[in-house]
Amino acid sequence: MNIGIIGLGLIGGSLSLDFRSQGYKVLGVSRQQYTCDIAVQKGVVDESSTSLELLATADLIFICTPIHLIVPTLQKLTPYLKPQAIVTDVGSVKGAIVANCGQLWPNFVGSHPMAGKTEQGINAAQCGLFVNAPYLITPLESTPNFAVEILTEIVQKLGCKIYYSSPEEHDRAVAWISHLPVMISTSLIQACAKEQDLNIRKLAENLASSGFRDTSRVGGGNPELGLMMAKYNRQALLISLTNYRQNLDQIVDYIAGEKWQEIEEILVSSHQYRAKFIQ
Amino acid sequence: MNIGIIGLGLIGGSLSLDFRSQGYKVLGVSRQQYTCDIAVQKGVVDESSTSLELLATADLIFICTPIHLIVPTLQKLTPYLKPQAIVTDVGSVKGAIVANCGQLWPNFVGSHPMAGKTEQGINAAQCGLFVNAPYLITPLESTPNFAVEILTEIVQKLGCKIYYSSPEEHDRAVAWISHLPVMISTSLIQACAKEQDLNIRKLAENLASSGFRDTSRVGGGNPELGLMMAKYNRQALLISLTNYRQNLDQIVDYIAGEKWQEIEEILVSSHQYRAKFIQ
Repeated sequence: MNIGIIGLGLIGGSLSLDFRSQGYKVLGVSRQQYTCDIAVQKGVVDESSTSLELLATADLIFICTPIHLIVPTLQKLTPYLKPQAIVTDVGSVKGAIVANCGQLWPNFVGSHPMAGKTEQGINAAQCGLFVNAPYLITPLESTPNFAVEILTEIVQKLGCKIYYSSPEEHDRAVAWISHLPVMISTSLIQACAKEQDLNIRKLAENLASSGFRDTSRVGGGNPELGLMMAKYNRQALLISLTNYRQNLDQIVDYIAGEKWQEIEEILVSSHQYRAKFIQ
Repeated sequence: MNIGIIGLGLIGGSLSLDFRSQGYKVLGVSRQQYTCDIAVQKGVVDESSTSLELLATADLIFICTPIHLIVPTLQKLTPYLKPQAIVTDVGSVKGAIVANCGQLWPNFVGSHPMAGKTEQGINAAQCGLFVNAPYLITPLESTPNFAVEILTEIVQKLGCKIYYSSPEEHDRAVAWISHLPVMISTSLIQACAKEQDLNIRKLAENLASSGFRDTSRVGGGNPELGLMMAKYNRQALLISLTNYRQNLDQIVDYIAGEKWQEIEEILVSSHQYRAKFIQ
C-alpha cells in the first residue's frame, strides 16, 4: 500500500516517519521544494514533489495542511486520484471540513490526531509522536465502511487510542478542551497587559512563575492556529464561552458576597473533576 | 545567628535546609511531634519542638504556616522573643497580614518567596528551591531599616531575585499572576463538568491533552490555598476578575460578530506580550 502525505510539517512528517518504519511506501507533497529535499534527505519520505500528481499511485492520503487549505487542496487533488483512493485530513475542526470534503470525494473520512509539540516543521518530525495520543475518526453516515476500516487499520499502527464520533460531537468536545482554553488564556494575558499602574504591571511580570506560565501558555501560542479555531469552530466555541462565562460570573458573585463555603465547594469539585481529564 | 522556622512544610523545610547548609543554626517548630522528629532525623533543622519557646534564642524567624495562622502564631510567639528579634512570614498575601503583624511586633517585615512544587510537606523539602525564584519583601514606612537589611542579607544567600514593594502593590500584582489564574482555571473545569451531553463530555475527557492540562492545572490544585487567596486578597482579586471579564466579553463579541482581524490582533499581541512574563 502506498501512503500519500500532503504538508510535510510536524504532523505530516511524523506520520511519514512512522508509516515508513512500518514498511509502507510514503509519497510526500509540500509547497516548498526545500521541504521536499529535506524530507527525502532525512528519509522522512520515499519520494517527494511539489506537485499533487505524485499521489496518482497513493491508496491512502493524509492532508496535513493548515485548516483553511484542506478543502482547496482536496479540490486540486481529486483529478489525480485512483477511484478507490481514501483521503483523510488531520485538521483540528471537523464539521465544515468533513461536509465539504465528503462532497468532493466520496471516500473521504475526517480525522484528528491529538498530538503535537512546541517545535513545528519538518525538522521537528519524529517517530512515535502519536503513541498513546487520542486519534479521533469522524465519519458521516454516508461514508463508505471500507474507507473507515482501512483508515482505522493503518492509524492503529501508530500506537494511538482511536475514538469515533460525528464531526459535530468532535467540534463540541474540542471546543471544551482545546479552543475554549485558548480564548480564556488569551483573555488573561490581555487583562494583565492593560493594568494601568506601571509599578504593578512590572512587578507582576517579574513575579510570574509556573502558575501564570501554564495558564497563559495556549493563549500566547501560535496566533494563526487560534484564529483558525475561532473561525472554523465558531458556533461550538461560542456555546462553550457562554457557559464558561456563567461559571466565572458565579465565582465572581460568590467572592464579592464572601460566600466562602460555596467557593470552597467549587474548588474541591474542580480538584476532583480534573482527575477525569488527566489520566 | 540563629534562625527560627515555624511550620516545617515544603517552604519552611526548604528554607531550613538552605540556611543550615550556609552554617546557620536552625530551630524548627511544628504543631506535629511527628514532623519535628522527621526534621531532626533528616537533618533539616538543628533542634525542633512543638513549643514556640524553642525560639527564645532566635535572631530571625520565618513564619511558614498557612495564611490564616500567621497572625495568631505571631500573637503566641511574641512573649518568647528577644527584643531585637526580626520576624517575617512567607504568606502569599501581604496587606492584611503585614498591617496586623506590624502592630504585634515592630521588627516584623512581610515577605513572599515565589517558589513551590506540587509535592507538599517536610518530605518534599529540598535544597536550592529558591534559586532564581523571585523573593518579594514588603516593608511598611514604619518598618525599621535594620530589619529589612538583615532579612535582605539572609535571603540573598538563597540565590533568589529580591524585589521590594508595598504590601498593597504585592497583592495587586499577585492577583494578576497567581490568584486570577486560579479562578479562571477553576471556571474552565466547572464549565466542562456541566456539559449536559454525556457523549460530548466523555469525548472531551478522553481527548484532553497538554493544552487543557496546563490551563486547568492551577484551578484543579489545592482547594485550601485557592480559598485563602480569595478570602485574604478579595479586593485585588475582584478588580482583576472584573478587568478579565471585560477582556473576555470583548473576545466573545468579536467571535460572535466574526471580527476576525480584531481577534487576530488580540492573539498576536498576546503572543508577544506573554514573552515579558516568561524570561
